[in-house]
Amino acid sequence: MNFRMIFKILGAVLCVEAACMVPSLLVSLIYQQGDARSFLLSIPVLIIVGTGLYRIKTVTNNIYARDGFAIVALGWLLVSIFGALPYVISGAIPSVIDALFESVSGFSTTGASILKDIEALPRGILFWRSFTQWMGGMGVLILTLAVLPYVKADTLHIMKAETPGPAPEKFVPKIGQVAKILYAIYFILTALEVIFLLAGGMSLYDALIHAFATAGTGGFSNRNHSVAAYDNLSLEVIITVFMLLFGINFTHYYSLFKGNLKSVLRDEELRFYAGTVVAATIFIVLNIYGKIFYSFGETIRYSAFQVSAIITSTGFSTADFNVWPVFSQCVLLLLMFIGASAGSTGGGIKCIRVILLLKIIRREAAKIIHPRAIHTVTINGKPIAEETLTRVMVFFFLYIFIIAVSVLAVSLDGKDMLSSATAVIAAIGNIGPGLGAVGPIGSYADFSVSSKLILSICMIVGRLEIYPILLLFSTTF
Amino acid sequence: MNFRMIFKILGAVLCVEAACMVPSLLVSLIYQQGDARSFLLSIPVLIIVGTGLYRIKTVTNNIYARDGFAIVALGWLLVSIFGALPYVISGAIPSVIDALFESVSGFSTTGASILKDIEALPRGILFWRSFTQWMGGMGVLILTLAVLPYVKADTLHIMKAETPGPAPEKFVPKIGQVAKILYAIYFILTALEVIFLLAGGMSLYDALIHAFATAGTGGFSNRNHSVAAYDNLSLEVIITVFMLLFGINFTHYYSLFKGNLKSVLRDEELRFYAGTVVAATIFIVLNIYGKIFYSFGETIRYSAFQVSAIITSTGFSTADFNVWPVFSQCVLLLLMFIGASAGSTGGGIKCIRVILLLKIIRREAAKIIHPRAIHTVTINGKPIAEETLTRVMVFFFLYIFIIAVSVLAVSLDGKDMLSSATAVIAAIGNIGPGLGAVGPIGSYADFSVSSKLILSICMIVGRLEIYPILLLFSTTF
Repeated sequence: MNFRMIFKILGAVLCVEAACMVPSLLVSLIYQQGDARSFLLSIPVLIIVGTGLYRIKTVTNNIYARDGFAIVALGWLLVSIFGALPYVISGAIPSVIDALFESVSGFSTTGASILKDIEALPRGILFWRSFTQWMGGMGVLILTLAVLPYVKADTLHIMKAETPGPAPEKFVPKIGQVAKILYAIYFILTALEVIFLLAGGMSLYDALIHAFATAGTGGFSNRNHSVAAYDNLSLEVIITVFMLLFGINFTHYYSLFKGNLKSVLRDEELRFYAGTVVAATIFIVLNIYGKIFYSFGETIRYSAFQVSAIITSTGFSTADFNVWPVFSQCVLLLLMFIGASAGSTGGGIKCIRVILLLKIIRREAAKIIHPRAIHTVTINGKPIAEETLTRVMVFFFLYIFIIAVSVLAVSLDGKDMLSSATAVIAAIGNIGPGLGAVGPIGSYADFSVSSKLILSICMIVGRLEIYPILLLFSTTF
Repeated sequence: MNFRMIFKILGAVLCVEAACMVPSLLVSLIYQQGDARSFLLSIPVLIIVGTGLYRIKTVTNNIYARDGFAIVALGWLLVSIFGALPYVISGAIPSVIDALFESVSGFSTTGASILKDIEALPRGILFWRSFTQWMGGMGVLILTLAVLPYVKADTLHIMKAETPGPAPEKFVPKIGQVAKILYAIYFILTALEVIFLLAGGMSLYDALIHAFATAGTGGFSNRNHSVAAYDNLSLEVIITVFMLLFGINFTHYYSLFKGNLKSVLRDEELRFYAGTVVAATIFIVLNIYGKIFYSFGETIRYSAFQVSAIITSTGFSTADFNVWPVFSQCVLLLLMFIGASAGSTGGGIKCIRVILLLKIIRREAAKIIHPRAIHTVTINGKPIAEETLTRVMVFFFLYIFIIAVSVLAVSLDGKDMLSSATAVIAAIGNIGPGLGAVGPIGSYADFSVSSKLILSICMIVGRLEIYPILLLFSTTF
């Protein structure tokens, strides 16, 4: 392991985080609610530690896959821990474990909260809370790679380790350039949403908060009742559309920009994603129409919003789906597992992996009937390497295995099975709300310290897609 | 596909089933509760259909893997359907779908029941109900291979398709001989349990019923309160020990018979199985002591029984674990997934697959750290083929996938999530009781017709380990 290089890059990450606190500092200075001090103290701490690490002299700049995993795993832990400083210092979240939970939840774009009265917090803190999701959505490391003048290292491994999905495509030769393009797309889409939300009648502050939360597919709102607080159809439509847009592989936006509409429309993952959204919405509409909502329009409005919020792992809510029929809850639960597209800011297992798993099943069935034929799994006409297929299967088992072990540990709190299980599923899938006590109007406040720690680990494990954390655990033991 | 051979063997299976009804007929004649007529009518039907099929002239005797799968899948469907005849004819279970559910539940050794008052049924019918589990435990096809004079075909594929576990070992050259040895071991162990239960004070009738249910790891009792009805420590100890014995790979008994004690004790699956039983019991004891039971002895008694009943997929109960703390329920739920050993009569995913999956994870972690080293997965020191590993991973995904789709369908009944989910998990794992409405004192009676059908399919899918039914589905569509 190239420890010197690892720590050097971690230092850069902390400096970037310090810079990212500046907008929140400005907000707190504007609204004067006494939270500016927390940023004025946190920023120097980050800069001191960050530049200290960044000054480490490296012997070699070579970075291997394992170094990439280590950088990403440690980077996310550090960023989350330091990102909790403003919560604690401002007194907004006095408990250290709660502040850490909220910070991890933000950066991992989960959006699970221990807060019971969000609106009581100062505006600078809420801005920071929402901004962490924006940073976490596209990736803290990718942000670092995008803004840093020049990290002398093969940074592909870092990007691979942070980007969701089984095989991130290298669509331009230089990593720094990829990072810049990704962040440019991200920035433009976010800005567009802010404009639409403003046009829809939101204040600038609320628009920024919700745009950050949508872009990162996080779901933190500054309102206790999330998006339901506005009770505004056009805002809901805007957020629904943008949630879905942020759940699409970002390389498609680059292709569109390059004029490749056809290749985008033919993409199997995009079709699966769109098909799942439509199918799930129809299922839920048919299930709740006449039971929960009595107007057909309203039924579609709330179903489509909730389906989009869950499959993209944003986790906003406009309705308490805890009171919906069990079938609709099962559909939502299934969406929590499926998740959004690879290369998007969304969580879950990711559509591409689900497609591959389904194709592997189809191949197994074909193998029984024609044992001697050669069976290749393809995506968009291209054959997929057996090693990738194996990794996808291993990923799936790991995902379920981590859920099983975590549910076991969390169940010691004595909460009912549904709440314990969906808390873990919502954490590892980076969704936010689950069912039962952790439903849309519930909170994670009442879990024990150990459960909050386990859920925090699940959130990072889910956001980084297991492997970086697996490395951390396996080298520790 | 060799359809002629397939139907010929199916004919033989039905004839064997007819013969298997004779003991139940005798019981009904002894107790004279009016149910003899149902067997006197069912047996000729089976013989007529069976011999009709068996007389089909075959062109070739070659059987491939797909034929083996087809024979096993269709064989189990036929046996279950015809096995429901006595329930319907006797009027004990007037609803055809309920009778089918109970028959499938018996043959698949699930032990889930739609009966609310078991003790009201005539004794011959209850004997048949329990005997179906004994037949299903070791396998209906294997029984046929064992008793048939000589099926001119390569019957290894049939055996492979019916035996639980990823790679059944061919420990003697001839399949007919293997089948005979397996049934001999099975018969001796069952007889031993009957003797012990008689010594423990059970009546011969009750002893046979419970021995069949234990041997097949089915769990049908003739008492409404299952084994709890006896409230007898020595009977519980006997049943606990025998449940565990029937959850062990039967090849170990053959090895013991041959004097290979060392190889048995070193077997990784056996160690994992024993370790899981001990660990789960300790976890539950620590969790419920002082909460559910106040004597330490009682706590161990009920915990050990329930752990053994669930991991072996027998599903007997001596306590209502629905009222146990959530952690204990989670442990039991996990055991439902893990299941017993390959080559035993138990259900679930099977210990050997869980071990392989865990070893695959360990290998993945090692690959990150040392990407260029060669990493082989071994069991008992022997390397496992990559193809086997792939199959195990595919099996795991299929298992979870079938559960997800089935829960979705069953949830349309509107039962709570826990009951819907654990009904499916208990069905596919061949356990019997789940949690909530389908808990130890619950019943499957209140599910809709479609849910009962889906659960029945899950039971057969679980017993046959998916592949035969996958073939049936993929050739149909």
